[in-house]
Amino acid sequence: MDATALWQRYQEWLYFHEELGFYLDVSRMRFDNAFVEALQPKFDKAFKDMAELEKGAIANPDENRMVGHYWLRNPDLAPSPEVTQEIVSVVEQIEVFAEKVHTGGIHPPKAPRFTDVISIGIGGSALGPQFVAQALAPDFPPLAIHFIDNSDPAGIDRVLTQLRNRLSSTLVLVISKSGGTPEPRNGMKEVKTAYSGQNLDFAKYAVAITMPGSKLDKLAESEEWLARFSMYDWVGGRTSEMSTVGLVPAALQGIDIRAMLEGAKIMDDATRIPSIKSNPAALLALSWYFSGNGKGEKDMVVLPYKDSLLLFSRYLQQLVMESLGKEKDLDGNIAHQGIAVYGNKGSTDQHAYVQQLREGVPNFFATFIEVLEDRKGTSVEVEAGITSGDYLSGFLQGTRQALYENQRDSIVVTIPQVNPLTVGALIALYERAVGFYASLVNINAYHQPGVEAGKKAAAAVLELQKKVVEILQAQSNPLSLEELAQKANESDKVESIYAILRHLHANGRGVVLEGNFAQPNSLKVSLN
Amino acid sequence: MDATALWQRYQEWLYFHEELGFYLDVSRMRFDNAFVEALQPKFDKAFKDMAELEKGAIANPDENRMVGHYWLRNPDLAPSPEVTQEIVSVVEQIEVFAEKVHTGGIHPPKAPRFTDVISIGIGGSALGPQFVAQALAPDFPPLAIHFIDNSDPAGIDRVLTQLRNRLSSTLVLVISKSGGTPEPRNGMKEVKTAYSGQNLDFAKYAVAITMPGSKLDKLAESEEWLARFSMYDWVGGRTSEMSTVGLVPAALQGIDIRAMLEGAKIMDDATRIPSIKSNPAALLALSWYFSGNGKGEKDMVVLPYKDSLLLFSRYLQQLVMESLGKEKDLDGNIAHQGIAVYGNKGSTDQHAYVQQLREGVPNFFATFIEVLEDRKGTSVEVEAGITSGDYLSGFLQGTRQALYENQRDSIVVTIPQVNPLTVGALIALYERAVGFYASLVNINAYHQPGVEAGKKAAAAVLELQKKVVEILQAQSNPLSLEELAQKANESDKVESIYAILRHLHANGRGVVLEGNFAQPNSLKVSLN
Repeated sequence: MDATALWQRYQEWLYFHEELGFYLDVSRMRFDNAFVEALQPKFDKAFKDMAELEKGAIANPDENRMVGHYWLRNPDLAPSPEVTQEIVSVVEQIEVFAEKVHTGGIHPPKAPRFTDVISIGIGGSALGPQFVAQALAPDFPPLAIHFIDNSDPAGIDRVLTQLRNRLSSTLVLVISKSGGTPEPRNGMKEVKTAYSGQNLDFAKYAVAITMPGSKLDKLAESEEWLARFSMYDWVGGRTSEMSTVGLVPAALQGIDIRAMLEGAKIMDDATRIPSIKSNPAALLALSWYFSGNGKGEKDMVVLPYKDSLLLFSRYLQQLVMESLGKEKDLDGNIAHQGIAVYGNKGSTDQHAYVQQLREGVPNFFATFIEVLEDRKGTSVEVEAGITSGDYLSGFLQGTRQALYENQRDSIVVTIPQVNPLTVGALIALYERAVGFYASLVNINAYHQPGVEAGKKAAAAVLELQKKVVEILQAQSNPLSLEELAQKANESDKVESIYAILRHLHANGRGVVLEGNFAQPNSLKVSLN
Repeated sequence: MDATALWQRYQEWLYFHEELGFYLDVSRMRFDNAFVEALQPKFDKAFKDMAELEKGAIANPDENRMVGHYWLRNPDLAPSPEVTQEIVSVVEQIEVFAEKVHTGGIHPPKAPRFTDVISIGIGGSALGPQFVAQALAPDFPPLAIHFIDNSDPAGIDRVLTQLRNRLSSTLVLVISKSGGTPEPRNGMKEVKTAYSGQNLDFAKYAVAITMPGSKLDKLAESEEWLARFSMYDWVGGRTSEMSTVGLVPAALQGIDIRAMLEGAKIMDDATRIPSIKSNPAALLALSWYFSGNGKGEKDMVVLPYKDSLLLFSRYLQQLVMESLGKEKDLDGNIAHQGIAVYGNKGSTDQHAYVQQLREGVPNFFATFIEVLEDRKGTSVEVEAGITSGDYLSGFLQGTRQALYENQRDSIVVTIPQVNPLTVGALIALYERAVGFYASLVNINAYHQPGVEAGKKAAAAVLELQKKVVEILQAQSNPLSLEELAQKANESDKVESIYAILRHLHANGRGVVLEGNFAQPNSLKVSLN
């Protein structure tokens, strides 16, 4: 395609939203009009599905749940006045709570103000808050946020050690929708122990964000925690950034949560238009479908050219991959769907793996995120007439062009600046695009059946650990791994038993291993 | 394969290195013996190629360079006594320098000690230092490190704003092998401006890490910077963590650089053995080749179950993708090689995208990194007999098993703890595996020809910006984009001109755009 035709194509497909100052360019996805026309019937269905979902249809049939994250930004859409009222009042509660924490109306027992907040949560209860914190927190926020998003003892220790002199002024958020996920439960127990170790009454520092009536909710109620905020059954973890999960930590950091909600609402409105060309989420879904042939054959490489958006790709990994990565379609056919997502930021990644993107295996399409505003205030010139921001902008344009020359497709999302409005809009854009794409490929985007298998297997490992330790406790002579497995009636789990023992051995948990470590079947195991 | 056969396979293929306490398990890569035998001739060549490379052969023919990162860990291998001596003395210089900074022998003009260090560098000059800082820096390091790894003005401002009260005790490392890469050059100019703004003499705070005689080296010499450290022509950016690039920032943070070098040396020795089964790097290369059919058909998902190893996948993105992502093989044939790498950490990622890994598009293999030691000190029980670390270990085992059940292959790398020795060993392991794999698929792992195209395209955009601004300066009436392009004699670059003007317009750079922003060809442009 020559330069004139390409410029025509650029203009023909350019999407612009005036209020948001938002642009979407899909001109470098090399679909033609016939492709778009062929997909039109699927899009007609996708627009219809989405309208029904927003009205409260059971969009997650496996779990018999409504899917209501769009209501959070426009409570009037909710299917009942009670839900509308609850959404409205929860945002007010969050603002009141944050205000009191900032002004000292709510304060720790022995200090006038909270200085820090530890946010304990994993998956949807971490990725949104982390992304938003990095994108939007002021340089000197009223409370500095720290995340515990794993069950890693050393990782938990690092957070607690660095905060040891400020623990008495550190608020703790425990975020767990079900209230039963082990990682935040473990994080909470570890943090609680640290507070006890400093003779601090954990309940006076703790806030629960969970579904009413959950195990966590009951604990927080019985121990009289500082506050409890509700999560909703009809908001999934990966779309919970605009619920209490995301809004409480954001508000505590001084981020304008109303503007986030407003940005999402504006984008929701824009992505409700049942016309591919006039709907940026539909344009994304179209591009994804084109690139991966509706089967996820290409990875989505996400490259924001802005440091503060570094975590957007991690956020999208969950939103896209957990939503779309499904074995079966809605009719029960094996589909093995999904789109792999990765990326960090530009121009940094140009010095990491753009070599492969340009020359190597062509198994991806790129999404550039462009931010027009370089910084607050003016820039020094690094050369005559040229700023650091001009370079950054030039790198984006140059990389897009270099990829295009080598037949690598790309999308450009452009926002005027990184602020609560545009971040809310970005989140809403991708939520909707994922919903449309799921409809195009006929899958349920709102469940995660595959996560259970790993959880069950992990629980079985812990059960096996208990069993094996019990047997060893009753045992006076060292046993081989096979003997131990036999005694446990788990002869098909020798390898798992070996992994368990190796881990206990390495942690001074009383397990003695003797023999040649290069040959597991030579090992004899006992307790000391 | 039944449990007994699988346990046999596990033991047959288990690699163990006693001194490092390092294990590698490739039993869940489902290759058979016939596959391994078929690859033997390629491996014979790979072992031979590597031996020659270590002896100083021109392993990077395009750039006519030796590839010497292995000499850094074992200077006696270097091809001349001069090189050996230089490597040895540079490590000593680094230690002396760091010691003086720590004890105040070298200090800022108006303070007894340096408190912080800003590290300015991109690609290989950032990813290694960032990975090592997160993995190994003590909780309270003698100098806290901050990275400027981009040309993003807002990102630079964030670092400088947060340090504004400590700038007078902040050391600055400018790391640029060639000394001509724009991002660190821009970062340096911006940081210099901030120092000047506080009436601080930048040269008294600045350290250059670059090739002798580079532009940066000359600047540092003429301005009499605090120190200069040499980079070598025979060390590539992505394998420079054990050179001055990685060792200077590590030593300043109080990390034991001798132990890092020792760990790498031990692993180098282990991966020099010309036998697939006895060589962990060969086992990795074998597994990669098997999984992706020698064509990168599967992505490499890297999942360390340890918070402090979060950045290992980012580090590996560069090492693997920039080394292997090549258009042509060594004979000049089009090959489009590469392996895409992504991942963050477990168990966190189980709550993000393991849904897709287990059920969705089977376009990957996983690499679990297991760390046997949970933490320093003992753990509380989160349930009877069970710790947070037991959960983490169980999650790893469970996820591996759940993937295997669904025919998703995986590797497990096990280290006893995260320390300088094991981190050095991990880096060396993957450097060697990449070298072997490159030999298996017959490519040059040590150049990056595809990076140039993006750089050139970016430089052209900046040239175009200057030209367009000049034309507008000489112009009294507003022009359409087409008219402007015509005047610039760049009629095929209207879109690029549009992107440039939109960016300048958004940054108060005097560009006035009038018209309908949704229709670029309606816009009239002038300077105010």
